[in-house]
Amino acid sequence: MDSVLERPSCVVWGCELNAQQKTFTFTAKENLLEHQLIIGTLCLGAESEDELNIVTLRSKNSTGNKPIPIASLRRSVLPMISISGIDCTPPVTFTLSSGSGPLYISGQYLILEEHSTSESGSEEP
Amino acid sequence: MDSVLERPSCVVWGCELNAQQKTFTFTAKENLLEHQLIIGTLCLGAESEDELNIVTLRSKNSTGNKPIPIASLRRSVLPMISISGIDCTPPVTFTLSSGSGPLYISGQYLILEEHSTSESGSEEP
Amino acid sequence: MDSVLERPSCVVWGCELNAQQKTFTFTAKENLLEHQLIIGTLCLGAESEDELNIVTLRSKNSTGNKPIPIASLRRSVLPMISISGIDCTPPVTFTLSSGSGPLYISGQYLILEEHSTSESGSEEP
Amino acid sequence: MDSVLERPSCVVWGCELNAQQKTFTFTAKENLLEHQLIIGTLCLGAESEDELNIVTLRSKNSTGNKPIPIASLRRSVLPMISISGIDCTPPVTFTLSSGSGPLYISGQYLILEEHSTSESGSEEP
Amino acid sequence: MDSVLERPSCVVWGCELNAQQKTFTFTAKENLLEHQLIIGTLCLGAESEDELNIVTLRSKNSTGNKPIPIASLRRSVLPMISISGIDCTPPVTFTLSSGSGPLYISGQYLILEEHSTSESGSEEP
Repeated sequence: MDSVLERPSCVVWGCELNAQQKTFTFTAKENLLEHQLIIGTLCLGAESEDELNIVTLRSKNSTGNKPIPIASLRRSVLPMISISGIDCTPPVTFTLSSGSGPLYISGQYLILEEHSTSESGSEEP
Repeated sequence: MDSVLERPSCVVWGCELNAQQKTFTFTAKENLLEHQLIIGTLCLGAESEDELNIVTLRSKNSTGNKPIPIASLRRSVLPMISISGIDCTPPVTFTLSSGSGPLYISGQYLILEEHSTSESGSEEP
Repeated sequence: MDSVLERPSCVVWGCELNAQQKTFTFTAKENLLEHQLIIGTLCLGAESEDELNIVTLRSKNSTGNKPIPIASLRRSVLPMISISGIDCTPPVTFTLSSGSGPLYISGQYLILEEHSTSESGSEEP
Repeated sequence: MDSVLERPSCVVWGCELNAQQKTFTFTAKENLLEHQLIIGTLCLGAESEDELNIVTLRSKNSTGNKPIPIASLRRSVLPMISISGIDCTPPVTFTLSSGSGPLYISGQYLILEEHSTSESGSEEP
Repeated sequence: MDSVLERPSCVVWGCELNAQQKTFTFTAKENLLEHQLIIGTLCLGAESEDELNIVTLRSKNSTGNKPIPIASLRRSVLPMISISGIDCTPPVTFTLSSGSGPLYISGQYLILEEHSTSESGSEEP
């Protein structure tokens, strides 16, 4: 009998926020049983100005009425950060609430697919 | 027999500390068997002044008589931090013991719900 | 049969090092089977001077004759750090080997209690 | 019966990006069932100039048409970063899209080998 | 029947690199089945000069012909770093390839001892 019921599939993901596109929404297929967007790094681009850039997020699993600030970066002080431990359920909306970037967000998109172990024996030797 | 007894539910959470509201207390429903607030990032807001901002915490599972300082941030030196490994049991009180912010705290609220595996068989194929 | 033999209990812990108290020792009850102090953040206080503060540690499970430096913080350069991956067995002694703080250390104290699953059935419904 | 079906093999890996070699591609043997490149640290070299260095990545499991920026480092501001939570499937291509380094990337290459427990008993005493 | 086959033993470890001792090699007993050195923090000492200090490593499980740079620290910019996710198999050689320190490396030495569950019942009540 197979004790492995779930097998994660993991995708590296990224987006850009800037003066023209201050908001980006990550969406996912609705038929997935469990999926998460795990934020990795946020970093400023080469053309960024020396100003405080603040990123907020709002996700399916976030609480409260207001977007949640998660990062404050400035070119001459802290041009990037590596984050661990913010796992969002899509849809996730990132907004550049201060500053004009360009600011890049990277992360991992994790999909946990549930296998039914009884009917799929032939595919798993 | 189902070996999955607990299934975590995870919520992204945030709060703001500033000169007007120097303290924020995160509370949770009392009927939950196990729940944790895991601190993610702390970041200064766009209107913050250039002073040292210090955040302390006190939680149901913290020790000692005094609140515990967990972060020191300053706009021109270190405007944000990503924290891993501080998991608090609610109620959790955050206080801006130095500085006037605005300072934003984000994190994850994790709820471990215990399933009784015998009576819920029909919902879990 | 219950496959969960150990259940961790987790406490948030903190201490202060300064010019008057350059050393702090964290101790624990001896009857615990397994327990760990996991270092979380180190941060400078509002009254700290602009000098390099260096923290060393010595623990029951540390090696060598000399205390091990684990952090170098300075108010105008790096006023705090979040550490992951230093898990100490008490007693743990932290020392401010350079600088005069105040410097705050926070972390988690994790206690793994071994349950005997056969005799304790009545306490676990 | 052996319940350990997979045993990870872990290798420390590194590469250099500079003005002459702005791109590096990490490849792996195709016959492996599951393997990952987990990014660890990025750090600037002693001869680096004081300019913003930006690293992008593209991997077998990355999404989108454009390489994903994952780090912005500058000698006088932030000469290195430790990253957690970007796990790539080879081939992985790192590019220095801004700046001229030298910039070093380190990480771990993790190979999960699937053991068939029935036929390989003699190799595992 | 005991399902716990392996029990990790964890030691906090540290070393110093400086102008006199630019290289340090961590070795381990050869009879251990599985052991790892997990790097924790690197920090500069109080007497360090204001220059870029670069640390490289070479380990039993590292690849390539050249030592791998893992950190760049400078007293006035970034006096320390906390690293996660570089796990080395001893022997591990750390070298200060630039700068003269003193620079301290701390970490954890993890030993996974394989227990044979049938013959050692009397030692494990």
